[in-house]
Amino acid sequence: MKLTVYFTPLGVTPNAIAGKPVLVIDVLRTTTTIVSALANGAKAVLPAPTAEEALRLAGNLERDAVLLAGERGMQRIEGFALGNSPLEMTSETVSGKTIVMATTNGTGAVVAAEPARPVLIGAVTNFSAAVQRAQAAFEDQGEMIVLCSGRERMFALEDAYAAGRFAQALIPGRQRRSAELNDAAFAALELVRRYGDKWKRAVSASNAARALKGVGLKADVAAATEVDCYSIVPEYAGRLVTLPDRG
Amino acid sequence: MKLTVYFTPLGVTPNAIAGKPVLVIDVLRTTTTIVSALANGAKAVLPAPTAEEALRLAGNLERDAVLLAGERGMQRIEGFALGNSPLEMTSETVSGKTIVMATTNGTGAVVAAEPARPVLIGAVTNFSAAVQRAQAAFEDQGEMIVLCSGRERMFALEDAYAAGRFAQALIPGRQRRSAELNDAAFAALELVRRYGDKWKRAVSASNAARALKGVGLKADVAAATEVDCYSIVPEYAGRLVTLPDRG
Repeated sequence: MKLTVYFTPLGVTPNAIAGKPVLVIDVLRTTTTIVSALANGAKAVLPAPTAEEALRLAGNLERDAVLLAGERGMQRIEGFALGNSPLEMTSETVSGKTIVMATTNGTGAVVAAEPARPVLIGAVTNFSAAVQRAQAAFEDQGEMIVLCSGRERMFALEDAYAAGRFAQALIPGRQRRSAELNDAAFAALELVRRYGDKWKRAVSASNAARALKGVGLKADVAAATEVDCYSIVPEYAGRLVTLPDRG
Repeated sequence: MKLTVYFTPLGVTPNAIAGKPVLVIDVLRTTTTIVSALANGAKAVLPAPTAEEALRLAGNLERDAVLLAGERGMQRIEGFALGNSPLEMTSETVSGKTIVMATTNGTGAVVAAEPARPVLIGAVTNFSAAVQRAQAAFEDQGEMIVLCSGRERMFALEDAYAAGRFAQALIPGRQRRSAELNDAAFAALELVRRYGDKWKRAVSASNAARALKGVGLKADVAAATEVDCYSIVPEYAGRLVTLPDRG
């Protein structure tokens, strides 16, 4: 069993992930927001690496069917209907819509995972469901890659701790010695030793959480650390994040 | 006091480091090898991002005065006089020479630090001297950046632990709460909690150490974890790593 953690998408090469299962994490806030959007009835999320690309992609879709969402410097992009808050993704707003989304870190990470199969979207809010889905892929394919979005091209504590929690859940302690872990997976597990199962403590200690609180977005941090609100696991394929039909 | 750790050079932008003090670390093996080369009388090390660039740079220098050194996949580059082993850097071999050097991770990290001032070269083998020099720059300039080379564009345990040791030495525990640490600095300090002051244990646990041992380079790992063999701190400026004249 091989488990590879990336702390940012920068080091990822298409070759390293092609055809392999990848779990993308951006606790604050992109993957949390994507989970909320799809749980509340959005048809799909179309991640874009930049605001310009989001505008271009939205231009190709029917106007009534699309919502632009995104953030730069933690704030809603001017002219976009929505920011990057999970709390904005109410069913009244998003039901039936395709959300074209551009965020500083998270949407780029999802797009970087494109060559992988499957690309699973993980957050605290769908943690147990994501573990279960990742476990199935891990057993099928013999390996798992956890891709953290990081923050402004750097290591982010909240994502690294989440990666550690996924690693812990996917590989029980007694199997960890024989598993092939990269150094980042090992360090992520160290953060779990530090914080145990305290999502709120670990996430609140991060630079991102402090920055969000500093601009009045404390409620987003709280929402992003509510465990297992949803039992869905969105997947990215063919440029869209959707809920796969498991019927 | 602001301390920023980068786990790889990928996230570094010239703007983020211009004019600021940077300590570059590649325990296995580039900065260790550079320290050995200069301690044993090399005139300078000229780091190159690629083997091709190393050849080009060496072509501009007088043939007798230059040695090519470098590695790809842990092995000496074909046609180069030296690999990337600190044990090769004997005074017989390197005294008076300029060493043009290309390694997979480390020389790229040194080159990426170019806009910084000063750029200090840190290793286990010059740890205390590097701490002292970094402390002086930290006090002068009010901040410090620790740049880990990482391994193949990814987080490397040995460099992250070393970054944690530098962070611990630069900011005593009682000042750590009021210091401005980024998430990576915080995670590096967690690794120090795990390994204490056991350089050999921490470095040996890394993917890089295991890979080097696997290709018969165990002696290099041992040499790279000998603490304070040297009291020099090489600096990179004007494209050359040299020992600054502190007379």
